Amino acid sequence: MNETVAMQDLYPENVAHCYGCGRLNEDGLQIKSYVDGEETVCHFRPRSYHTAIPGYVYGGLIASLIDCHGTGTAAAAAYRTDGREPGSEPPVRFVTASLKVDFLRPTPLGPIIELRGRAREVRGRKAILDVELIVEGQLCARGEVVCVRMPEEFGK
Amino acid sequence: MNETVAMQDLYPENVAHCYGCGRLNEDGLQIKSYVDGEETVCHFRPRSYHTAIPGYVYGGLIASLIDCHGTGTAAAAAYRTDGREPGSEPPVRFVTASLKVDFLRPTPLGPIIELRGRAREVRGRKAILDVELIVEGQLCARGEVVCVRMPEEFGK
Repeated sequence: MNETVAMQDLYPENVAHCYGCGRLNEDGLQIKSYVDGEETVCHFRPRSYHTAIPGYVYGGLIASLIDCHGTGTAAAAAYRTDGREPGSEPPVRFVTASLKVDFLRPTPLGPIIELRGRAREVRGRKAILDVELIVEGQLCARGEVVCVRMPEEFGK
Repeated sequence: MNETVAMQDLYPENVAHCYGCGRLNEDGLQIKSYVDGEETVCHFRPRSYHTAIPGYVYGGLIASLIDCHGTGTAAAAAYRTDGREPGSEPPVRFVTASLKVDFLRPTPLGPIIELRGRAREVRGRKAILDVELIVEGQLCARGEVVCVRMPEEFGK
């Protein structure tokens, strides 16, 4: 597996404009998920204005990170399930059907955020992902993302 | 009730920097929730770069809108449950404990987004809110937000 390319950088050009993770969205967050064994990992440094209560990270940003890292994790898992290299044809692009975030403790604003994703289930067009959000070794939020493979008519 | 002031504009100054809804966050989204009878309403026009797949609204923005409209709805409901005017002392500020979003259909990017919030339960320090996200009369997403009153030590 090519572990140096982010899953999102393998999305086809016509669906690479996501505000969260699209490489072609210059105003976006540019969230990137990398394969790390059975897991996926993402590192993100929030901007100073991504505040909730002063000193802590905004929950909507946390939800965004979990969302895009979830779809990236789904793509990685689908390539693995298919037994082929990430980036091989046809490309894999999931979209989110539902997102659940539990904010376990306030997430300190400043340090780099780490997200770890794992596929709980990949079956047919559907995938269920578990994502943990960690700052300085502390689990701050936990997410569950249900994704489906993007319908063909999207992005056309 | 003063229905012309957004719930978020009643948050105390030291906790009004939220990227989603803080009036003191100049880089933020400035989400505003207004009381409308038993419900709360919010209108938001996404920026052109708030894309998911081209033509549709980014799911992380949808989660952010539901999050901040949820906490605003919780504040409105708490004032109502207390039998007092929004803005009366002591101020009410909820924070999100968990957030669930079901993306029912792609949300078209361009038109104004409407959110409608309703309190399912307000008990002690906890509130559960239901939020619907509607574009041009179509229900596009549904959210459930569990909030708790902000601990006193926050924002100090």
